[in-house]
Amino acid sequence: MTDIANVTGVGVSPGVGAGPVRAMAAAVPEPPAGQPLDGDPAEAKRRAAEAFAAVGADLDARAAAAAARDRAEAGEVLAAQAMMARDPSLAEVAGQRIDGGLAAPRAVHEAFGTFRELLAKAGGYMAARVTDLDDIRDRVLAVLTGAPMPGVPVADEPFVLVARDLAPADTALIDPAKVVAFVTAEGGPTSHTAILARTMGIPAVVAAPAALDLPDGTRVLVDGATGVITVDPDEDAVRRATQAADALAEAVSAAKGPGRTADRKRVPLLANIGGPADVEGALAHGAEGVGLFRTEFLFLDSAEAPTFEQQVATYRKVLSSFGDGRVVVRTLDAGADKPLAFLPTGEEPNPALGERALRMMRHHPDMLDTQLRALAEAARGLSADLWVMAPMVADGDDAAFFVDAARAAGLTEEAAKVGVMVEIPAAALRARDFAGGVDFFSIGTNDLAQYAFAADRQLGALARFQDPWQPALLDLIHATAEAANRAGKSCGVCGEAAADPALACVLVGLGVSSLSMSAPSLPMVRAVLAAHTVSQCVRAADAARRGTSADTARELARAALPGLSALGL
Amino acid sequence: MTDIANVTGVGVSPGVGAGPVRAMAAAVPEPPAGQPLDGDPAEAKRRAAEAFAAVGADLDARAAAAAARDRAEAGEVLAAQAMMARDPSLAEVAGQRIDGGLAAPRAVHEAFGTFRELLAKAGGYMAARVTDLDDIRDRVLAVLTGAPMPGVPVADEPFVLVARDLAPADTALIDPAKVVAFVTAEGGPTSHTAILARTMGIPAVVAAPAALDLPDGTRVLVDGATGVITVDPDEDAVRRATQAADALAEAVSAAKGPGRTADRKRVPLLANIGGPADVEGALAHGAEGVGLFRTEFLFLDSAEAPTFEQQVATYRKVLSSFGDGRVVVRTLDAGADKPLAFLPTGEEPNPALGERALRMMRHHPDMLDTQLRALAEAARGLSADLWVMAPMVADGDDAAFFVDAARAAGLTEEAAKVGVMVEIPAAALRARDFAGGVDFFSIGTNDLAQYAFAADRQLGALARFQDPWQPALLDLIHATAEAANRAGKSCGVCGEAAADPALACVLVGLGVSSLSMSAPSLPMVRAVLAAHTVSQCVRAADAARRGTSADTARELARAALPGLSALGL
Repeated sequence: MTDIANVTGVGVSPGVGAGPVRAMAAAVPEPPAGQPLDGDPAEAKRRAAEAFAAVGADLDARAAAAAARDRAEAGEVLAAQAMMARDPSLAEVAGQRIDGGLAAPRAVHEAFGTFRELLAKAGGYMAARVTDLDDIRDRVLAVLTGAPMPGVPVADEPFVLVARDLAPADTALIDPAKVVAFVTAEGGPTSHTAILARTMGIPAVVAAPAALDLPDGTRVLVDGATGVITVDPDEDAVRRATQAADALAEAVSAAKGPGRTADRKRVPLLANIGGPADVEGALAHGAEGVGLFRTEFLFLDSAEAPTFEQQVATYRKVLSSFGDGRVVVRTLDAGADKPLAFLPTGEEPNPALGERALRMMRHHPDMLDTQLRALAEAARGLSADLWVMAPMVADGDDAAFFVDAARAAGLTEEAAKVGVMVEIPAAALRARDFAGGVDFFSIGTNDLAQYAFAADRQLGALARFQDPWQPALLDLIHATAEAANRAGKSCGVCGEAAADPALACVLVGLGVSSLSMSAPSLPMVRAVLAAHTVSQCVRAADAARRGTSADTARELARAALPGLSALGL
Repeated sequence: MTDIANVTGVGVSPGVGAGPVRAMAAAVPEPPAGQPLDGDPAEAKRRAAEAFAAVGADLDARAAAAAARDRAEAGEVLAAQAMMARDPSLAEVAGQRIDGGLAAPRAVHEAFGTFRELLAKAGGYMAARVTDLDDIRDRVLAVLTGAPMPGVPVADEPFVLVARDLAPADTALIDPAKVVAFVTAEGGPTSHTAILARTMGIPAVVAAPAALDLPDGTRVLVDGATGVITVDPDEDAVRRATQAADALAEAVSAAKGPGRTADRKRVPLLANIGGPADVEGALAHGAEGVGLFRTEFLFLDSAEAPTFEQQVATYRKVLSSFGDGRVVVRTLDAGADKPLAFLPTGEEPNPALGERALRMMRHHPDMLDTQLRALAEAARGLSADLWVMAPMVADGDDAAFFVDAARAAGLTEEAAKVGVMVEIPAAALRARDFAGGVDFFSIGTNDLAQYAFAADRQLGALARFQDPWQPALLDLIHATAEAANRAGKSCGVCGEAAADPALACVLVGLGVSSLSMSAPSLPMVRAVLAAHTVSQCVRAADAARRGTSADTARELARAALPGLSALGL
């Protein structure tokens, strides 16, 4: 036993995992400016060269490992990093600085600095590589100074990964067989860590700062549903928790077929995808279709806009994968944190409140028209049920603009349903004003919460406002769903809110007609939904809206959903 | 007569003005890089030196003129600019570039560039002077190249100033006797131009891009209420419009005393002020008190936080000016576009959605406590009715934090009312959840619209979302006022929305109990309010909320307010 107290955070990916804590190494500190050379310059240059070579070799090995695990994209990134590490000009500049009297670590740091600036200035794709370069720099410095290697620790036995937060780069190579749970100090239910954990099916707890104080090797039991991290659990506790998780997994895998409530009301369960590569995972988890097909990947990291033909080919690949299932395509949502190389926007003081998404397309109607025509062409002759929607619609004027553009581009009433994302508070409040003019609504809960609370979803310090159980957010969802239902239109939810099984029931109770989420969350939501009737969902929704905080809303709703405890949730 | 069509924009400051168009000169273009010297270097250096001297002398004359008109602050800025223009090192660097083979304009441009960079790097107050330096540079270049002098044109007879947009620097020296109306291509009802025009009592129309095509000297009649700019009006039209404006002005000046409706329901009419300097203007326009005392001026542009004693002295000056009138003080609203030199925040991707205002104070409770204690101390022994409120309150947790802090700092129930700004959509939607815990609400319509529409109030391209007649904004105001009324609390509005006389009536109809605005708008609002009963206001509010756009809301409300046309509005 130990005298370290248990830790509680926010459970964001259900399941349990037990094992020793392994912390992500802290960032490698910057060697002090002017750090003087202490010793022989030739020796220092040799050490620097060895460090470059060692990091290059390590990255090569990791690239090969990734390729062997069918993670071609991660492999390519790592191979490119290995080449950068071996770039002779880096060692050359570092050598010059050593000759100028600097210690090897500082010389290496400054050598990277020169290249970093060049990359950053180049803009676009090159600038995005700055993070990769910083990672190589930190690795070389770690080798040179004997500091712990940054990134995900390497261990022989399965472990619980504890970190301040996980960046995409940290997680590209995580082996689900080795990491039994994630625990982070920062982040919220929509943070990268949470989404990644659900995608990989790994239990996860976020917003647990006290976890950083757990010494490496401490045995813990992580419950990704309740958010509790038990320190030094006894074998019985681990066994009980694992059994409960296994029983739940069994119940989940027993729930098959299309989404429906206990009283057999159909609630289509759809997947959020980012491109054709995600189709297989969606099908594997039983997605009935796609509720959010983000088309940005075709446009980002690209020097030019994709052609009509390139778009047709990509869309057709997705549309043909779901038989006569629904595929909801969101038109280009660029701007804000997703800039386009070929369509630079001016500097905006607050890009998330700027001319992003549909607002940008209203200035570039040709680009929107090409995408809409490509969608019409892609669906021609297929049995897929094509739905097309615009992001960042604020009012009836925006909605009418988009519907007109879609119809004019050949997305006739026979060819496609045309709708809008509701992710701006004013649009939710006034959905009734334009429900009659669109075919459907799809609520984006992440952005809707961001704007409703004036709290950047990228800021960990404001994570409490991203909690999708906030009653104000439920009110906005209710207003939107009610407007859709009165107009006889459908209303989906495609934010991460739909992936919380209890909240999924509440959404159905609020009048939402379909749910779309990361594919791995589908089975659990399917099982929980099948365990509740519509009237239980409505009661849970009413109870949640009586709450005065996210916590009270969650508690009140859970009390109205008896199927949760029956499933051990 | 002319064949140029009339122009329509958005009227933002009522009244009419007639006169010839004078356009702001376009920006002086940057001389091309490498522009070669063509002629004698000594001659070029002489011309450059003359241009520096001429601009210095002109700025000196303008400084003297400003000082003579009791505009000491503007005079000091101009005198400082004159000194910068005469700084010998500028001429020296320019001379070196001329000797190096550059033409005088390019050489001057580069000389300024060197200093510009130094200023920008110095940060804080110095960096804020970059705009002043750019202005001097453009003036010197205009003299050198014969381009029109940038800034507000100089003319002997009164004129209508037409510009793309007006920056604070452009307008510091505007003479209300010379400029009979403003017309800008960009901007919205809350833009700097609009606020300035109302403050100066000058008719203004914004968002009228076609006005830029009017040739200089074209005679126009500008109606700042309807937004119509009549080209080449006949004398009769000018006379009728002027008479109507005079009649309105008379009716307005006849409306005296405290704010009330026609059926004598009291609606306190208060002023928004930025410090003790604004008190005189507020009193002159009949403000019954202060509805928004912005305390930022004590903290911004300052290397250190103001001391307790400095704060007490400033607050006391304001509190003692209004007898037993209400003074609503907003605690520090820093962050976002108002950074503090002594409390730098990290880089935020979207500062308006970041840790600003109360969120910042929750990390710095000592700074908040000092301000609250200073307010308690300042009010001691005075008869003023002190109200204190926090900006950017999102939910009940924020509200409770602030009320607790205020009470703990000595702002007891006897000493002050303690309330919160409602400027975040979620707070408006859920005002009922925490109305019981506060003494009052004050709705900030500018930020509330910014967040409700996810549209940066600083972006001219998104100005339509800043229109305070948007029905979604009216819904949020209604939810807030209703929550306050049910809890028996008062609910003011302190955004620019209150300065629109028709909208002021609608706000009263929505349940708002006091209105606060730029002082010059008070008399007109007082007159229009006195011409309508509460039930007319309620009918107008109901009508406005039946609108599906800002325009339809405005039209429906106006139709329900017969007193507007009786006043010629």
